[in-house]
Amino acid sequence: MSTRDAGALDGVGALDGVGILGLGVALPPRVRDNSFWAGVIGPRDEAQRRGDVLAVERSAKGHKTEVPKEIAEAMAATGDDLFRGARERRVIDDDVLVSDLEVEAGRAAMADARVTADEIDLVLVHSLISDVLIPSNAPAVQDKLGLTRAAAWSLDVGCASTQAQLVTAAALVKTGAFRRVLIVQSHAGTRSVDPKTVASVNFGDAAAAAVVGEVPAGFGILGQWQRTDGSLRDGIVLAPIVDGVAERSWWKTPVVPQLASFDADVGKTAGLRAGEFCREASFGALERAGMRLEDVDLYLGNQSLGWFVDACRRSLGLPVEKTFHTFAEVANIGDAAILFNLLAAREAGRVRHGSRLLLYSPAAGFTRSAIVMRWWAPGSEHLEKDGAA
Amino acid sequence: MSTRDAGALDGVGALDGVGILGLGVALPPRVRDNSFWAGVIGPRDEAQRRGDVLAVERSAKGHKTEVPKEIAEAMAATGDDLFRGARERRVIDDDVLVSDLEVEAGRAAMADARVTADEIDLVLVHSLISDVLIPSNAPAVQDKLGLTRAAAWSLDVGCASTQAQLVTAAALVKTGAFRRVLIVQSHAGTRSVDPKTVASVNFGDAAAAAVVGEVPAGFGILGQWQRTDGSLRDGIVLAPIVDGVAERSWWKTPVVPQLASFDADVGKTAGLRAGEFCREASFGALERAGMRLEDVDLYLGNQSLGWFVDACRRSLGLPVEKTFHTFAEVANIGDAAILFNLLAAREAGRVRHGSRLLLYSPAAGFTRSAIVMRWWAPGSEHLEKDGAA
Repeated sequence: MSTRDAGALDGVGALDGVGILGLGVALPPRVRDNSFWAGVIGPRDEAQRRGDVLAVERSAKGHKTEVPKEIAEAMAATGDDLFRGARERRVIDDDVLVSDLEVEAGRAAMADARVTADEIDLVLVHSLISDVLIPSNAPAVQDKLGLTRAAAWSLDVGCASTQAQLVTAAALVKTGAFRRVLIVQSHAGTRSVDPKTVASVNFGDAAAAAVVGEVPAGFGILGQWQRTDGSLRDGIVLAPIVDGVAERSWWKTPVVPQLASFDADVGKTAGLRAGEFCREASFGALERAGMRLEDVDLYLGNQSLGWFVDACRRSLGLPVEKTFHTFAEVANIGDAAILFNLLAAREAGRVRHGSRLLLYSPAAGFTRSAIVMRWWAPGSEHLEKDGAA
Repeated sequence: MSTRDAGALDGVGALDGVGILGLGVALPPRVRDNSFWAGVIGPRDEAQRRGDVLAVERSAKGHKTEVPKEIAEAMAATGDDLFRGARERRVIDDDVLVSDLEVEAGRAAMADARVTADEIDLVLVHSLISDVLIPSNAPAVQDKLGLTRAAAWSLDVGCASTQAQLVTAAALVKTGAFRRVLIVQSHAGTRSVDPKTVASVNFGDAAAAAVVGEVPAGFGILGQWQRTDGSLRDGIVLAPIVDGVAERSWWKTPVVPQLASFDADVGKTAGLRAGEFCREASFGALERAGMRLEDVDLYLGNQSLGWFVDACRRSLGLPVEKTFHTFAEVANIGDAAILFNLLAAREAGRVRHGSRLLLYSPAAGFTRSAIVMRWWAPGSEHLEKDGAA
């Protein structure tokens, strides 16, 4: 690698000066609490756990796996709870379009950023389950929000789509190719799983959005690190299930698809590497931002399982008070979790002007993706001038 | 709009200095010529044409539509040919993975660019029909090409994905966030249509790829223009067909999907606006590049129908010798057409160092997307130094 090449990637500042101008979220009104599964799923249902790619403590054949310390400790912290810390999740009604949830989040983000529809040049959308297979939900969101000057693209990196959208939007804004980009993620998780399986207790529905645009230098995205290991791609898939087996060739299999696995042990392996993946991506992003772990004010990330955030923070060595999540309230909301938690943390006073944020998520595929941001609170120009921040 | 805002978007140079370092394509070996439809589709099958969203000259109810001059003339140029100029198209075998076609194109592009697997930081993929519903084909391409340092994202704007990928890759390279990006598009068109319908004669399979990286200033992407009108999104969709009608709610309809329409007349309307859309996007990109139409050396674009390229060039007022397409040889290959034709034109000596290219495609959704590029031929540094270019 030449010196010039190394400089291009390792330098601070590639994307700084672009950040989040506003946030919005949307939750379906219907609440599903744990009583929904009464009589359906018993504690310690070993057969179910073996087949459940999210239950990493057993292999597909039922053997106990070697669980890394951070995961074992995080699991132990949730105790014997069958729901591993989830109390409620939201469920999208059968006749509601996912794009309507996305539009609600997008509209809230635009209001929060105080930008009008004609100030958005581009909308980037990722939907776990879109309204239609083709086109993506991006044109529906563009149309319903009246973004008459915008292009509408789908950028999908599964549960890491938020980071990919943030990085893409930032680069487009930084170069001047686009000025303001609306990014939107939705997770109609309950449309992707059989509600009578043990895995389904983890899944909830939500949408989240942000407006990305210019912020003062030194704020916004300070570092990012992305990598995919596609050799693990069979671990978590959406596929038609025929006689209990996930089928390839969805385009010729007339069966509705569900989240499943072509090889449950590959998925469990990726799950067991949760801490390793988090460390790799997080320290990669911190290094590029020229920051140390101690500089991080708050970690926000994927909450695919009740133990996930806690295992990640243990793997990093972060104190628990530097994390924030909402698994108990909304369960796994996929890639919507990062912006959902960012807004909730801001409202709780946990994200303030100047806060240094570490955002991390893995994604089916498997991708590991981290961003380091320094939060710009609109209207904080006076703090900067006074040197108070 | 403030002066600063206008400057950010209208200035030349937002993405210049980033261009294509190498190109690759892949075609399945199986050829399907027009004899495949002998006895199935007769000339002037009006009932079929009414339902066919691609046959814009008749409304869904069978009325003659008002066909703009450029389309009428382009249609007339293909005469009475039932296949509207298509002689052959390629067909992917039933047991072949689309990602293998994408990998073949990607490998060829990397060889053409003389970059190794560890020099690719990011791969952007769009597949009309991916191997699996989730995850996208991006992780499969990353893994099979051994891109061990790369992230793998899916960027989907239908038939305009090439331009979206080029613009995204260029912005990421220009900011230094990533150095070299592999972009890949595939069109397994024959997996999306019933081969015994009149529309199916238009569809072929192909993949195309490019390596995007730094080129000297003044070369690469000089201008781009993207916009979506989602109110036309019901025009062309991939959806389960039940009793001849495209069903919404694919996630609960156990029927294999096909390219279809929720409202054929919306699709036909978008088709009839082909010239208007092309003019809007092309002149938008030219203006941002600070170029006039007369400066364009070659127009390359979407070839979704036999008359499409010709109608676009008529709408612009370009002479026929400034266009190049391969509809007769491969038919509609979706978003793979732009890079496929770019490579074919380069091999035919039609794209040379310094060539000014106008790339245009609409996309289901509907999106209109144009890029103006100035071609950098690797190894041409001496031409620049001598002032010969």
